[in-house]
Amino acid sequence: MLSTVVFYSASLCRRVVIQSYSIHRRRIHSVIEYPLTHPIYTIWASNTSLGKTLVSAGLSISFISSSTRSSRKKFVYLKPIQTGFPEDSDSRFVYRKFSDFFAYKPLPFSVYASNRVLKASIPASSVLMNDRNEVFVDEVVGKGKKIGDGFKNVEWYEERKLQGNESNESELFPVSEVVCETMYGWKEAVSPHLAAEREEAMVGDSELLNLLKRCLGNGLVGTTYSSVESEVFCLIETAGGVASPGPSGSLQCDLYRPFRLPAILVGDGRLGGISGTISAYESLKLRGYDVSAVIFEDHGLVNEVPLLSYFRDRVPVLVLPSVPKDMSDDLISWFDKSQTVFTSLKEIMISDFLERTQRLNDMPKKACDIFWWPFTQHKLVPEEKVTVIDSRCGENFAVHKSVDWISQQFDACASWWTQGPDANLQIELARDMGYTAARYGHVMFPENVYEPALELAEILLEGVGKDWASRVYFSDNGSTAVEIALKMAFRKFLSDNKVLLDLVNSDVNGRCMDLKVLALRGSYHGDTLGAMEAQAPSPYTGFLQQPWYRGRGEFLDPPTVSMCDGTWEVSLPGKLQSDKSGQECLLVQGAGGMLMIDPLYQRILVRECKNQKIPVIFDEVFTGFWRLGRESAAEMIHCQPDIACYAKLMTGGVIPLAATLASDDVFEAFTGDSKLKALLHGHSYSAHAMGCMAAVKSIKWFKDPNTNMNMMSESRLLQELWDSELVVQISSHPAVHRVVALGTLCAIELLAEGSNAGYGSMYASSLLNKLRDDGIYMRPLGNVIYMMCGPLTSPEVCRSILEKVYARIQEFGQH
Amino acid sequence: MLSTVVFYSASLCRRVVIQSYSIHRRRIHSVIEYPLTHPIYTIWASNTSLGKTLVSAGLSISFISSSTRSSRKKFVYLKPIQTGFPEDSDSRFVYRKFSDFFAYKPLPFSVYASNRVLKASIPASSVLMNDRNEVFVDEVVGKGKKIGDGFKNVEWYEERKLQGNESNESELFPVSEVVCETMYGWKEAVSPHLAAEREEAMVGDSELLNLLKRCLGNGLVGTTYSSVESEVFCLIETAGGVASPGPSGSLQCDLYRPFRLPAILVGDGRLGGISGTISAYESLKLRGYDVSAVIFEDHGLVNEVPLLSYFRDRVPVLVLPSVPKDMSDDLISWFDKSQTVFTSLKEIMISDFLERTQRLNDMPKKACDIFWWPFTQHKLVPEEKVTVIDSRCGENFAVHKSVDWISQQFDACASWWTQGPDANLQIELARDMGYTAARYGHVMFPENVYEPALELAEILLEGVGKDWASRVYFSDNGSTAVEIALKMAFRKFLSDNKVLLDLVNSDVNGRCMDLKVLALRGSYHGDTLGAMEAQAPSPYTGFLQQPWYRGRGEFLDPPTVSMCDGTWEVSLPGKLQSDKSGQECLLVQGAGGMLMIDPLYQRILVRECKNQKIPVIFDEVFTGFWRLGRESAAEMIHCQPDIACYAKLMTGGVIPLAATLASDDVFEAFTGDSKLKALLHGHSYSAHAMGCMAAVKSIKWFKDPNTNMNMMSESRLLQELWDSELVVQISSHPAVHRVVALGTLCAIELLAEGSNAGYGSMYASSLLNKLRDDGIYMRPLGNVIYMMCGPLTSPEVCRSILEKVYARIQEFGQH
Repeated sequence: MLSTVVFYSASLCRRVVIQSYSIHRRRIHSVIEYPLTHPIYTIWASNTSLGKTLVSAGLSISFISSSTRSSRKKFVYLKPIQTGFPEDSDSRFVYRKFSDFFAYKPLPFSVYASNRVLKASIPASSVLMNDRNEVFVDEVVGKGKKIGDGFKNVEWYEERKLQGNESNESELFPVSEVVCETMYGWKEAVSPHLAAEREEAMVGDSELLNLLKRCLGNGLVGTTYSSVESEVFCLIETAGGVASPGPSGSLQCDLYRPFRLPAILVGDGRLGGISGTISAYESLKLRGYDVSAVIFEDHGLVNEVPLLSYFRDRVPVLVLPSVPKDMSDDLISWFDKSQTVFTSLKEIMISDFLERTQRLNDMPKKACDIFWWPFTQHKLVPEEKVTVIDSRCGENFAVHKSVDWISQQFDACASWWTQGPDANLQIELARDMGYTAARYGHVMFPENVYEPALELAEILLEGVGKDWASRVYFSDNGSTAVEIALKMAFRKFLSDNKVLLDLVNSDVNGRCMDLKVLALRGSYHGDTLGAMEAQAPSPYTGFLQQPWYRGRGEFLDPPTVSMCDGTWEVSLPGKLQSDKSGQECLLVQGAGGMLMIDPLYQRILVRECKNQKIPVIFDEVFTGFWRLGRESAAEMIHCQPDIACYAKLMTGGVIPLAATLASDDVFEAFTGDSKLKALLHGHSYSAHAMGCMAAVKSIKWFKDPNTNMNMMSESRLLQELWDSELVVQISSHPAVHRVVALGTLCAIELLAEGSNAGYGSMYASSLLNKLRDDGIYMRPLGNVIYMMCGPLTSPEVCRSILEKVYARIQEFGQH
Repeated sequence: MLSTVVFYSASLCRRVVIQSYSIHRRRIHSVIEYPLTHPIYTIWASNTSLGKTLVSAGLSISFISSSTRSSRKKFVYLKPIQTGFPEDSDSRFVYRKFSDFFAYKPLPFSVYASNRVLKASIPASSVLMNDRNEVFVDEVVGKGKKIGDGFKNVEWYEERKLQGNESNESELFPVSEVVCETMYGWKEAVSPHLAAEREEAMVGDSELLNLLKRCLGNGLVGTTYSSVESEVFCLIETAGGVASPGPSGSLQCDLYRPFRLPAILVGDGRLGGISGTISAYESLKLRGYDVSAVIFEDHGLVNEVPLLSYFRDRVPVLVLPSVPKDMSDDLISWFDKSQTVFTSLKEIMISDFLERTQRLNDMPKKACDIFWWPFTQHKLVPEEKVTVIDSRCGENFAVHKSVDWISQQFDACASWWTQGPDANLQIELARDMGYTAARYGHVMFPENVYEPALELAEILLEGVGKDWASRVYFSDNGSTAVEIALKMAFRKFLSDNKVLLDLVNSDVNGRCMDLKVLALRGSYHGDTLGAMEAQAPSPYTGFLQQPWYRGRGEFLDPPTVSMCDGTWEVSLPGKLQSDKSGQECLLVQGAGGMLMIDPLYQRILVRECKNQKIPVIFDEVFTGFWRLGRESAAEMIHCQPDIACYAKLMTGGVIPLAATLASDDVFEAFTGDSKLKALLHGHSYSAHAMGCMAAVKSIKWFKDPNTNMNMMSESRLLQELWDSELVVQISSHPAVHRVVALGTLCAIELLAEGSNAGYGSMYASSLLNKLRDDGIYMRPLGNVIYMMCGPLTSPEVCRSILEKVYARIQEFGQH
């Protein structure tokens, strides 16, 4: 695929710069949160100049009009990004239209309106100072203070009191108000990324979101006019179209995504506007936004007919009367005429908001009532322990905390070790998922071929299967991948021991021998019966869980490696045993408590199995795809299996898919003239297109140093993600028994004794509850806690998490 | 969610019409196909008036300019939909610009150009006749003939010979040519759906696509000027923006989707144009289109910088010089100046085309080399038997047939019985999949709650679980759902037999008794070991396939029901047996050969199990969600299970997801104070958001008579899909043994003896090969062939398939 620009005349030397400058811009480190005590909406448009600000002003009028003597209202309007400033100022426009309207048609009581500007580029702030008397006719308090990055803190403010038309009013009477704010202004009337560049006034995405978060918080605070609680309504107006770049160059629909605020879309009523409106809506959906309404100005083309047909049952469509060319009455009569529409819009927005908060509040109880969670004793999960996840943005959940707050938590368990994407890759995957569903849905696999399945098979054989695997068998999850691997290994073993195969063929009943696996004690390979049988007996395999389980293996106690008190140590087991057939191997035992098995031990074991013609299976479901810093754990122990299983992170963590890779020898054990000799195992969605596409995209993205800043280009290794000094410090803490930090994993075993140790232990729960307050979502494996990031997570994020964990361990140790 | 329009003044009475008129418009019955012998591209734009036609003309000039003495070129330009006609005519514009350019800058040899109009609305065709002398200055042959639907077959034609500048030319010399065609013209310069309505000249989507297919076929045919094979390049220009409605009201990106031709997107270089370009691209991706290049006119805003950042590595971006306001030279100098860009564009398009065809040709061999297909003896699948699936549109595959053709085949095996969507639902699902990936990706399930999982659990309990189930346990596929169901049933059985439970609890080793299932012989429940154990012994469970299989059940031979010679018959089995523990039940045995088990037998069996406190599992993986005409098979046998398994069609067939539903009694057997009493079974992607969302959408869509025309609103049953007379006829054919037609399934057992019977038989393969030529993709179960449609498939489509099958059976019977 080409990735160049063909430009008709200009020099091409800027190509390189263009291609790589934006991908790592959006590493957002601040914790995003916003209140759910009142509606906060973002207003988007399918193009510039479609009247977003008219809609904002109309909503402000409609909302404040509903004030009564006993019900005070506060309408907050935020314009984070304003170009062409101060000539163009949408917050001033809303302030003015609102004021003019109520000056002309006063309410029974007084209303306050204000407009504030927080920061302006130096060129914009100079104009602001010069034009002071011309532009701002109301009371103006302005002071300019130069700050970094080419901005001045202008703190420009104007306000008006709109007198009510009833005489019995006093200053103590509850007062409604409209608060308008421009966050950043640039002088040139061009796209924000151009204005920011030309005026040398740049603002990073994180910084902008942080200021927005503060402004949203301010919406809660009572004003100077009254101590009475007010009903608040907040509107954030974007600049240009939904995918217009913000000041950093990030598209605005990406820039604001961490908040994922509900949206209003201002559509286009002109010729061609149907298409633009639908496409803009689809771009919002492709970022996970919910759109509460579409509204547009009538241009006599009845665009609402096809739009309604498209939006049927999903989104209400509202039509505003044409805006008159003659604006001599300052649009007062237009706003008047439009009030029914704005009131409908406002009601839709408020009702959607109430529905959303109601649902969020109801969800824990409903979940406790009808879900049956895996690996969960429901009696031990009271409603208040249930986490309501509103969305995910990269490595972070947005959770509904207490009654009235949406807040981010870092998904430190990587959602059962599946997760890889950051916010950028997530959006790329979203588009690819939409595309793949539209192009293929799912199509039948056997005897067929289609691009995503073929490309994934190629990528797997060139990557994790390089130099040993020749075939790819797809299934749905790690457990099925292991069941398939076992079937392959059994056949290979029989085929390598022809005497045995003859025995099988000559025995009508065919139950002529007892095949066992050689496996590591403490390993976990999945919960279907075949995968369970390859695990050593434990409470998880007991009669109470699965009466059919027998434990068909010889199980070894391997030596493990971990850091204690700052040094790496090997823990030796009792002694070794050895016996027949398939053997499974993995570098780190995940569910078994994040134990890192001695690599040398594994290498020798594999070599010995190969010498004895025992087929070797690597279960890389957990360890594959850079989970431990390398594409496969096999790279680390420097030997190759006959069969290997992959799942979890393979698709980047969006969707289930598994692959069992096999060598040519294994495959050959199944070929012949009879279908009955083939591997007769399959699942309906074998090699489903969406899973394959997600895997193709994710593996390529992880591997490419242009998209994965953690990838060291020569070695194809991830850089160290966990600060090594901090790891040593933690391992030396008296409350800590051992630490394993490798690739995306940092596991900490807390020193515990008796019932505090082991998988069933609740020992770590108070620690984990506090970490959730710190914005880190962890789940323990008994007294082992772990943090898991993705291959794309920046070391800075990892460091900040580790610091928080260390601080909480210090508190914990003092108990 | 609201679904109304709020309109500022107009009467609201058209609401109802608006909301329901378009959803069933796009039932396309014709078989879509197009040649791959030469590039065929569709040119789209992000808005109106961005210069699609300039790009078309530029490409025509660039392509023909590359002609040489020995290489004849043919450029075909098609404009399917033209409004504002004949004043506006893009095909005439291309014809003119091309002609003017080569009249001014002649090639060494002559070139022909022609422009044709096929159909015009009556108002448009009157103007065409009147304006004849003004509008068409070249040789014009016009005749108007009234046809149905308000169109005239105008067959308007003009052509020019552009003399070469070398003297030694003769008429025999290979001649290059540009062929321009307008398919449908309307007079008013408004959106096609409005023009079609106002001029009472409607054209259905099917009809339009059929004409387009014919026009594309014509591109292959040699012209009158030469018998020499020419190199062809074909361009189809759409009208307006990507999501502008076509004449029927279908969005054009939906209308043309069955062809899924590669695309060129003309973007927008103006202020706000970045957003519109990106959104339009995303709308194309959300319909499964591949975009080869984005091109736009420079307006001095360097829109290419953010566009390149967005399109990085995916799509090349090209920038055209600004179009001069002064057009006095007919843009000749502009076309001249733009030739480098057009030539780059042309080369990108040709190279993408060659890459695509090369890949399609290579895929079968690569698939045979590296895939390991499930249930497939690779030695029996030669390369030429491999089907290359380019895409799916609703129930149809687009397959790559022979070397140079893309053609539709009806997916009559519903891709292993998973499929439900038609073209409309597929596009809805695609958007929802993109949204869900962007909003959630996948998030951790245990102790958490998020909307798609909760909503799906609610829908399942109100639907298939109504009146009996209270809990939903999610997993990944039918096999895991069955493993979970077995674990539930065992515990329930122990819990109901407290003596046994005490025995278990007192026995340290816990292997105190042998639990078995009571199941039906011939049933299939999946390929993981636990699911296999619940199946009767067969070659599929033998030692060669899984040495650990023992067959832990008592297996019954049930009576079956089918139609033979036009009458329904019950086949009685040997005799019944009966024994302990869980029992599985399903109305139709799918993999076992589409046997319909006697419902009365099942009802009695279930009642008897319940009497004896044996927990009952319904395996509804295949039968659930209207597969057999009702939401669940349980509705048909009028009794309820304790546990039931669902998968396959649950997600509409896009993505794997399974659910095991359980009654409260079953759930209670797992509650207690210890985690070890909980059901300790789970998969990483348990209740993954995308699967849940697909299921929510699909189940609602299938159930709603407003979206599913097959749903009879009172009874919640599907209407009969298979023509009953035809079914009787087929069942009476001498080559046919029996027929089962129920819901979306029509299975036909061919009369066969000895090795021709049974699952391994190749008996039906010649029949199925012929049906693939008829555009029907089927897979046999030995001598049983079946057709499976989706719950949304129209009875007309089913009828046409059944007719083709009947015709082939008649041929087959004569062998």
